Amino acid sequence: MSTALLPFPPIWLRDNCPCAQCKDPRNGQKLFGITDLPADLELLDVTTSDQTVSVTFAPDGHRADFSRSWLDAQRVADHGDGRTERAKRLWSATEVADLVPTATWASYGDDVATRARILRGVRDLGFALLRGTPVVEETVLAIAETFGYPRETNYGRLFDVRVEANPNNLAFTGLAIAPHTDNPYRDPVPTLQLLHCLDNAVDGGESGLVDGFQAAALLRREDPESFAILTSIPVPFAWSDDTASLRADRPLIEVDATGAVREIRFNNRSMQALRLTTAQSEAFYTAYRAFAEIVLRPELLFTFRLEAGDCVIFDNTRLLHARTAFAESGSRHLQGCYADLDSLLSLLSTLVTLEAQG
Amino acid sequence: MSTALLPFPPIWLRDNCPCAQCKDPRNGQKLFGITDLPADLELLDVTTSDQTVSVTFAPDGHRADFSRSWLDAQRVADHGDGRTERAKRLWSATEVADLVPTATWASYGDDVATRARILRGVRDLGFALLRGTPVVEETVLAIAETFGYPRETNYGRLFDVRVEANPNNLAFTGLAIAPHTDNPYRDPVPTLQLLHCLDNAVDGGESGLVDGFQAAALLRREDPESFAILTSIPVPFAWSDDTASLRADRPLIEVDATGAVREIRFNNRSMQALRLTTAQSEAFYTAYRAFAEIVLRPELLFTFRLEAGDCVIFDNTRLLHARTAFAESGSRHLQGCYADLDSLLSLLSTLVTLEAQG
Repeated sequence: MSTALLPFPPIWLRDNCPCAQCKDPRNGQKLFGITDLPADLELLDVTTSDQTVSVTFAPDGHRADFSRSWLDAQRVADHGDGRTERAKRLWSATEVADLVPTATWASYGDDVATRARILRGVRDLGFALLRGTPVVEETVLAIAETFGYPRETNYGRLFDVRVEANPNNLAFTGLAIAPHTDNPYRDPVPTLQLLHCLDNAVDGGESGLVDGFQAAALLRREDPESFAILTSIPVPFAWSDDTASLRADRPLIEVDATGAVREIRFNNRSMQALRLTTAQSEAFYTAYRAFAEIVLRPELLFTFRLEAGDCVIFDNTRLLHARTAFAESGSRHLQGCYADLDSLLSLLSTLVTLEAQG
Repeated sequence: MSTALLPFPPIWLRDNCPCAQCKDPRNGQKLFGITDLPADLELLDVTTSDQTVSVTFAPDGHRADFSRSWLDAQRVADHGDGRTERAKRLWSATEVADLVPTATWASYGDDVATRARILRGVRDLGFALLRGTPVVEETVLAIAETFGYPRETNYGRLFDVRVEANPNNLAFTGLAIAPHTDNPYRDPVPTLQLLHCLDNAVDGGESGLVDGFQAAALLRREDPESFAILTSIPVPFAWSDDTASLRADRPLIEVDATGAVREIRFNNRSMQALRLTTAQSEAFYTAYRAFAEIVLRPELLFTFRLEAGDCVIFDNTRLLHARTAFAESGSRHLQGCYADLDSLLSLLSTLVTLEAQG
């Protein structure tokens, strides 16, 4: 085989033929299925030039013209869709303190580069902060709509985080809340969360974020056995009230097919009883405690204070969020909503193209 | 250890203590984290009665009272959240032909048992059919809102499936479309799809469904090596136009942490070039072809015709959908939307409780 074609076998080349017969020029979609291709494909002829590698296939004589630059790009390992730990910048609190992607609402709205920087922050670090947004209810939805679509749930299009008389959730009290991810009992889990501050005139009520991918990486390094256990045991999470009954069974640390960390679920409040043998139970709890002890290390907790008009946007598949206790006599009101990473990353990709053309 | 407590180790018992100090009686949420519990928990005393098992723990003397019936329930293996192949009724075309969960729009709206039967169909078989819905645009959104929330995407709250002059998708032509899942390039993928028929006065244009979990189970039985390859290689899927650029890398067959099939992605149109070694590429394509040949077996394809007023609701993480070609001169118009399984299953659970209360 010509080295110009390494490492691509004939079936790979044919499946990626860019000709108009194989790929709809109107939309880039592949026009054939894998079973439409001969099972006994071979290369009949290969012709190379400076720019192009042309391949003719047996038995049917189909010809594919590849640009060399495209073929070259396919030889380089990439980070896939960028959603696993491999594509992220993992952080501890001191490391991230100087990196916090922050912008005013005005510059976020006016300036493409600023908008791209904020969205890139969510992608790479897992969060970003907007300052000076309108101190008006439902602004959180308007912010989500700048990059996607609020994910409506049984909690509504948005939810209010403030002290309630009969709370169905600890969030609606003045109690401290340890680092956790939201809605682990929901599949698909909301991949993004926004918290918009309307009022925070209390003693306490500081916000905290922990990089769950970093915590998982530390666990893998320090205690690989516990890491293996937490990636291989689905954990039942559930939540219910009079109108909803939600459940999802997923591991605390979810790895992709290649073993890279892709999603974290961590929420003691909604974790249910696991159905395991005694030995499995003991191993699970040892591993769970080891992971929790890492998650709770002070050096991993980045703390900050949301003031009225601030909005934090974060990746709920990666970051854990927390808050300190506050006096219920004071006045604190956040509005939150969920959204999803697909549209945020799509917009970022579009903005990057715009910037490059700029 | 008392047999009344088998197989539960002390830490499991303590983590599931139902007392008001451990579990908020207002909302059922656990009030402590795993690191709040002593690492050296032991059972100090166990007292059993007909209804209850009471446990006192060392070193802190905390006492937990468990109902025997609750403990008994925890000894029985369950199907977790019911989202994997283990909880489903897998089918071939002839098997499902007599089972199709079907209801009129009127009875679906009026009768709790009918509504539960339809939603149970989506859960267990992967789909259900509503007949006699209003032949009015946007009805598909009203149907989705009976059990959840339409998932808005870059395609809008809903999308029209009809012949277009400049299609950005094969769906908008009269061409046949082979069995596929939608939006594999999106993570989270839409877990439900609805297709509502406003008009189908064409020759052809029949609908088809394939149980992807059944196809995966057949592959595992007939060709376990190919099954292992397809569960372990993330496949890049992508879609883009002027306004969006979406990508997700996920395996064609996704198994959960215990190896049970949980999600299928199958869409030749949006599959991109894989970056693999020659040997991996060859193994992948052999496995992909083997799976495709199973997916395309006529005995797996359940075909039916959507008439005006019909709506099919199906699980896009499990079923593949297809359509036969039709003459573009005829008149065919569907409206589709995406939604998610979390709210559908939550509603079903609530309806089952209602039914039980009679």
